[in-house]
Amino acid sequence: MHSFEETREQFTKYLKDYNFPTEPAALYNACRHILSIGGKRVRPVLCLMAADALNEHNEDSFRAALAVELFHNFSLVHDDIMDKADIRRGQPTVHKKYSMPTAILAGDVLNVFTYEVLNELETANKKQIISLFNKTAIEVCEGQQLDMDFEELDAVPIAEYLRMIELKTSVLLAASLKMGALISNASGTDSSLLYDFGRNVGLAFQIKDDYLDAYGDGAKTGKKVGGDIIANKKTIFYCYCMQEASEADKKEIDTLQKYQGSDKVEKTLEVYEKLGAREYVYKLKDEYSQKAFDALEQMSVPAEKLKQLRTLASYLLQREY
Amino acid sequence: MHSFEETREQFTKYLKDYNFPTEPAALYNACRHILSIGGKRVRPVLCLMAADALNEHNEDSFRAALAVELFHNFSLVHDDIMDKADIRRGQPTVHKKYSMPTAILAGDVLNVFTYEVLNELETANKKQIISLFNKTAIEVCEGQQLDMDFEELDAVPIAEYLRMIELKTSVLLAASLKMGALISNASGTDSSLLYDFGRNVGLAFQIKDDYLDAYGDGAKTGKKVGGDIIANKKTIFYCYCMQEASEADKKEIDTLQKYQGSDKVEKTLEVYEKLGAREYVYKLKDEYSQKAFDALEQMSVPAEKLKQLRTLASYLLQREY
Repeated sequence: MHSFEETREQFTKYLKDYNFPTEPAALYNACRHILSIGGKRVRPVLCLMAADALNEHNEDSFRAALAVELFHNFSLVHDDIMDKADIRRGQPTVHKKYSMPTAILAGDVLNVFTYEVLNELETANKKQIISLFNKTAIEVCEGQQLDMDFEELDAVPIAEYLRMIELKTSVLLAASLKMGALISNASGTDSSLLYDFGRNVGLAFQIKDDYLDAYGDGAKTGKKVGGDIIANKKTIFYCYCMQEASEADKKEIDTLQKYQGSDKVEKTLEVYEKLGAREYVYKLKDEYSQKAFDALEQMSVPAEKLKQLRTLASYLLQREY
Repeated sequence: MHSFEETREQFTKYLKDYNFPTEPAALYNACRHILSIGGKRVRPVLCLMAADALNEHNEDSFRAALAVELFHNFSLVHDDIMDKADIRRGQPTVHKKYSMPTAILAGDVLNVFTYEVLNELETANKKQIISLFNKTAIEVCEGQQLDMDFEELDAVPIAEYLRMIELKTSVLLAASLKMGALISNASGTDSSLLYDFGRNVGLAFQIKDDYLDAYGDGAKTGKKVGGDIIANKKTIFYCYCMQEASEADKKEIDTLQKYQGSDKVEKTLEVYEKLGAREYVYKLKDEYSQKAFDALEQMSVPAEKLKQLRTLASYLLQREY
């Protein structure tokens, strides 16, 4: 059983050996750029850790890990265009550094490379794994569309907001784990439980992300507290308030959305507190965390083998930055 | 042996039975929109005709045909964004009718659906077919990048121009045929010859496209003669002139590029004529046509079985509109 850090090191080495063609230079430099920006490589490492927990890494688990990382990077490139984001992890985004057309193409070609890596899988489960991957990739696209749709709406029911973050983020974490499990020939039950673990970790993580934006310690998160409030983003807090508030409170929230004063964050947090939004969101995050750990508990695998996954989830969900 | 028209009718029926999910509505309406715009369905029909020539259609050849059509439509949606095209076949393009972000996502999800269709292939050749498809999809992306790169250059060598149109257009026609052939268990030689046939038909077709723009009968093509000249597009004529012309002639072409007078087309055609560009391009098209028919001739399949493919190629390459 390898730790997250050890597994990440193994994956980084594997990724380093993966080379894009040289020409056309702009297209493949754009691909190399997004992959060089880095990130925590959570998805491929989850895939490898799942394979490891159930059996051990093999060439196929590295292939699946690489595929999910290529796919994730493709989705980052296209999301950054749609979200008009100029910076990612301190680096210019692909469409900023190159051009929008090249960024579209770089994403497209990364997606094709993803499938070429998957086509090399040798496991007898190959068709099932690719089918799971496709279902997930479709859901990720649907999640991004829902996110854009929601920005146009006045209110989004909590259930729909949760479904959106599930599709946009959690399913790929879940699928990464399940792909690793399937490669290690896990039983149907165990691989589904690992999927549930990933899905719930993802949901808890996203909810925590909203929570930290409102109540985090700016010194630890490195972000301005209340950034989502200032940008009028549809967060779980906003959805809760619009769903649970009285007409008078809804009006207050509406007024605060248009308000530009320097105490906008403070005043909005007062409303959150009054309506019980802080408590609700904190509890919701804890519920999903608990569901995640419960899923691991139910697996027919010695607890010792799942220790590293448990440690990782605790780390992700207890982080305050 | 079914004709192009008969095969197209079969494919249209098959495509009609293929349904996208309903939600998110914007995303899947965008997918339905591009597929409803139609087009000649040349690629899927070539795939089916190749399968038919070597054996006969089966469920797998329809799957492969559907995959190439979905992929082609994905590439149209993204190309239209990159090319800032507002209209396709008299209809608004996807990013015009919906939005640019939805058009990016619709293309992305069409690409994933392509692979889900390919994942259902039952043939023992599945891995080889998907690998060919991936190689082709990568080349199509590379071709689009080269096309964009070339627009920034003053001169493009003829060989590079031909490589660009080969990647951007011909390889998908070629791969469509070869995929059909592989599904019908064609020999390696026969499937490669069909690939060459498609590649050369595609090249001849694209060169003819440039030719008709300059020398076609507007009444037949339905396009303004000289549209490429007016838009200063890098065509095979332009590449030829910049490669073959004397310094003085190059200067004249350069001056004509900046010229906005109503006789710009006429004057440019005079230069083409003087430099032998018309004759060169016409011959080049004929050479590729001949290579295409030669490839068919060399196949170890009774000529009768290839009759419909020959008829189709003649139709595509002799068209004057």
